[in-house]
Amino acid sequence: MVDQLTLYSAKFCPFSQRAELALKEAKIPHKKFHIDLKDKPEWYAPKVNPASKVPAVTYGGPDVHPSDPSPESAKITESLVLIQFFADLAPESDLLPKDALGKARIRFFLETVSSKIQPNLGRWALGSGSYDAFFEALDAIQDQLPPVEKGKYIFGEEFTLADISIAPFLGRTLLVQLRNGIGKFDKQEAKLGWEHFQGPKYERLRQYIDDVAARPSWQC
Amino acid sequence: MVDQLTLYSAKFCPFSQRAELALKEAKIPHKKFHIDLKDKPEWYAPKVNPASKVPAVTYGGPDVHPSDPSPESAKITESLVLIQFFADLAPESDLLPKDALGKARIRFFLETVSSKIQPNLGRWALGSGSYDAFFEALDAIQDQLPPVEKGKYIFGEEFTLADISIAPFLGRTLLVQLRNGIGKFDKQEAKLGWEHFQGPKYERLRQYIDDVAARPSWQC
Repeated sequence: MVDQLTLYSAKFCPFSQRAELALKEAKIPHKKFHIDLKDKPEWYAPKVNPASKVPAVTYGGPDVHPSDPSPESAKITESLVLIQFFADLAPESDLLPKDALGKARIRFFLETVSSKIQPNLGRWALGSGSYDAFFEALDAIQDQLPPVEKGKYIFGEEFTLADISIAPFLGRTLLVQLRNGIGKFDKQEAKLGWEHFQGPKYERLRQYIDDVAARPSWQC
Repeated sequence: MVDQLTLYSAKFCPFSQRAELALKEAKIPHKKFHIDLKDKPEWYAPKVNPASKVPAVTYGGPDVHPSDPSPESAKITESLVLIQFFADLAPESDLLPKDALGKARIRFFLETVSSKIQPNLGRWALGSGSYDAFFEALDAIQDQLPPVEKGKYIFGEEFTLADISIAPFLGRTLLVQLRNGIGKFDKQEAKLGWEHFQGPKYERLRQYIDDVAARPSWQC
């Protein structure tokens, strides 16, 4: 008997997508409830996440409908905490290596993504970043990728929490915002940026994004 | 045969103290090498940590002198990554609970310390914070503490990574900076702050700091 697990997430939210990818990859039975960030249900903050953000999880307690969360379930938030929680719940998955050093390498990557890479990827389209900082972040990710023959993913053949931490932000900023010119960046600069990303320099990174997007977990 | 582990740390550095506390609590055999932050050895950045910060660890490889690090050892940095690495190396310690939910609760606490509490504690004495933000951070920590009869530490009777993440910053900001008026804060405001901290409101937090400082791992 598995404890009930309900994920509260939002569409087009890369933080939520981290949690969704990890749950699917770990094959953890769960319910998913969509939160409309522009019209949040009144019960969400008091009963699930006082910070009123997604993703959030209720774990354990009675098997209730997601719109009626039980005070008896544990409430867990923060996307990087959640994906590590799911990896711990499913140690048989390959989301984290089995050895301490391998885990430390992944956690260092998560820390770098959280403190440097993801903010620099996201800020350009939000109007507070820059073209240069955006491409520096892309370079940092591409530099982590092994040659294709050594593995498709950041740490080689296994798709891990490292990939889950960054792929949703690559998808959103590149394939949605930059490709379609959606964002508070200069539109001409964004167009040049998209062309730059299509060039030979980013062949390895484009292959990586294709490989991640081909996984069943990436489908909605 | 245990892999060699060398910790590079600096005196009076709360980030280093996190790593030292966790190593001692986990009873992991190790060597310690003191880095003088004002006069770093030339080999430190190229051979141990390109970011040139402490703490850092070399793990595995040949058993060399710390001043001659081997290219064969793994290099690990970031204090919160390191303390989780040590907990993973010594799963028999109680630094992390055994269950996934308990681990997630500790990791959420580490995330909160890293993103909110520790910056607000540290910034006042650095001249960029405020009295109010400092005491809000103290309140946030004290609010986490159970009643003494339910346990001395943040998560109860066990001394965990949660305590290790925050105690060095309480020690430094309260017992060194505030008590002695050392910092870029207004000296009169700091004096009032120290008196406020000595008052009845912070009795529980003072007890906590005494309990942590009484552990053998706290001694140099």
